[in-house]
Amino acid sequence: MTERALLLHRRLASLGVDAVLFNTSEVVPSTNLRYLSGFCGSDASLLITRTERLLFTDGRYKTQAKEQVTGFRIRVVRNKPAALAGALKSSGVKRLGIESPRISYEFVTRLARRVPGVEIVPLKERFLEEFRICKADWERERIKRAAEIASEACREVVEAGLEGRRECDVAADIEAGFRVKGAERVAFETIVASGVRSALPHGTATARRIERNDPVIIDFGCRYEGYCSDETVTCVVGTAASEFVNIHSAVYDAHMKALDAAREGMKARDLDRVARESIEKAGFGKYFMHGLGHGVGMEIHEPPHVSPRGRGVLKVGMVFTIEPGVYIEGIGGVRLESLVYLGTDGAEVLCQMPKDLIAAD
Amino acid sequence: MTERALLLHRRLASLGVDAVLFNTSEVVPSTNLRYLSGFCGSDASLLITRTERLLFTDGRYKTQAKEQVTGFRIRVVRNKPAALAGALKSSGVKRLGIESPRISYEFVTRLARRVPGVEIVPLKERFLEEFRICKADWERERIKRAAEIASEACREVVEAGLEGRRECDVAADIEAGFRVKGAERVAFETIVASGVRSALPHGTATARRIERNDPVIIDFGCRYEGYCSDETVTCVVGTAASEFVNIHSAVYDAHMKALDAAREGMKARDLDRVARESIEKAGFGKYFMHGLGHGVGMEIHEPPHVSPRGRGVLKVGMVFTIEPGVYIEGIGGVRLESLVYLGTDGAEVLCQMPKDLIAAD
Repeated sequence: MTERALLLHRRLASLGVDAVLFNTSEVVPSTNLRYLSGFCGSDASLLITRTERLLFTDGRYKTQAKEQVTGFRIRVVRNKPAALAGALKSSGVKRLGIESPRISYEFVTRLARRVPGVEIVPLKERFLEEFRICKADWERERIKRAAEIASEACREVVEAGLEGRRECDVAADIEAGFRVKGAERVAFETIVASGVRSALPHGTATARRIERNDPVIIDFGCRYEGYCSDETVTCVVGTAASEFVNIHSAVYDAHMKALDAAREGMKARDLDRVARESIEKAGFGKYFMHGLGHGVGMEIHEPPHVSPRGRGVLKVGMVFTIEPGVYIEGIGGVRLESLVYLGTDGAEVLCQMPKDLIAAD
Repeated sequence: MTERALLLHRRLASLGVDAVLFNTSEVVPSTNLRYLSGFCGSDASLLITRTERLLFTDGRYKTQAKEQVTGFRIRVVRNKPAALAGALKSSGVKRLGIESPRISYEFVTRLARRVPGVEIVPLKERFLEEFRICKADWERERIKRAAEIASEACREVVEAGLEGRRECDVAADIEAGFRVKGAERVAFETIVASGVRSALPHGTATARRIERNDPVIIDFGCRYEGYCSDETVTCVVGTAASEFVNIHSAVYDAHMKALDAAREGMKARDLDRVARESIEKAGFGKYFMHGLGHGVGMEIHEPPHVSPRGRGVLKVGMVFTIEPGVYIEGIGGVRLESLVYLGTDGAEVLCQMPKDLIAAD
């Protein structure tokens, strides 16, 4: 973690500030604080000045901070705003950068009252993007392990058959599989949407029973050592209606074309366009109403945004989803999602389930 | 929900503001926004002025907002700060109250820039306490149902025997039980701490295998229709060491005395003292290093604070935990936690597992 903190340390001048502050609480957690320091607890402040790197926490987290944090001097305090104010004064900070989307108005105003001479400078969320957006090898390995665990858990449940089961029981079994295989927890609420419910892009699992010839969309992911996975498969119990098979073919082709097309240096929106044009040609364009994908890492949704409005350029080290979908009310929906790592040769798929129409009898 | 919004509406004058704003986002969710409006989505603003009650959200949540929200006019917008600014101007708002611990610095500053004539007034978190702290009957019923589901799920796993099982597998089975029985999800990460790990107040489940004669602390809760449960039991696989039995007796007595003593009109800290003095008399005072309990509702931790510093007075309608614990490094720990509703006759226990030393062979 020291390396990340040092990188930020060196950038203080170019950010136009003397120091940068991060704060994590139960209500407003900062993933970047964890990213920079390694600290996983739910109450701490991180202050990086030109001369120091400090982590402030309270007595509950003393042992944990010592175990987890490197690259920062740990200060166990009772009153964080008071301690921060003291450090700002003694370091002569005039301009303090804050992670303004991830810090509460209350915390900033409480601190500002103690240091009236310090100018608060909201930094754009993206100022840390360049750090987190490209993954180190060890980060890729954690995400890959999360994806493997999740794929295995889902495969076991699907292979045991879905007919007659309630959506919520299917979700429960997959989530139990995550834990048994070593994941910390789910990365998001597991989606199991069957029958006509498959047309809901975010249909969480209900008590509906899966019937013969139902399509079933399963969107699932777990968290392993702080990193997330994300994958979606489409299954059918018995025989799918022919119009459903057509939808699946269109989404499958778009998914495969996007997988093949992904290259470093490409604009994110151009990758989105590859899939979108393929689905448009198949006649389903208006039913693909979300972006092609999103970055995945310590958070389930993070940059890059692979969408029609995604301005960024794809780079080696990025991990993101490729998830075209077509949803037609009254008929059903198909979404096929792979989690990929972008290497010098293109997209490496990190998850393991097939993207065919999976038989789940 | 309309009733809650109206109550707040009537209080605007006494809060010293012309309007109150709540904002919920994926990063900084506001439980109070959901409480007041019924809206469960992850992006919306709520504005209560002297003349209007408005909910602003975007196109993704149009259908959901119509289904869930009562008592507010719904406005589907692309740019929330711009729409809010327009509404503030047309309502002639001069002083705008905000829920400052649960709103990001960025959101407030973006809005403030658009309405330079409006004074931003941070309201204390507790200004809504009086609404949420005492539960309506239908809220009590949801919490009770959550507690019943959780107790049943835990009982089934404990009765099947814990010997030789990994902590994480026990946690996974309990959590799967929540889902199968109709809960939405866990209320918090299930704690399964066995052997000497039982001395960790917050020992999340690991791959450790539970051995013969191990004590096992299980702290678990689920979420049912938006409301949480919370319960802790202590089990033993085989025969507990005599010093462990002594610890259990001390905690059990403290737990029972506190259950008996809880009455409306009592100071929260006096209830804490009942349990604390009992444990002190048994000689374990210094090993009970947390408060006796906390409120439970839409959030797993909310007021009242039943601790040595808890200033409030217990009232009919409050739902809180009674959870004394003793943790001795190298020997093990016991925590016994019941979730109670305070009625006119005292504490009604909402959860169902026994607080004896439960045999889990």
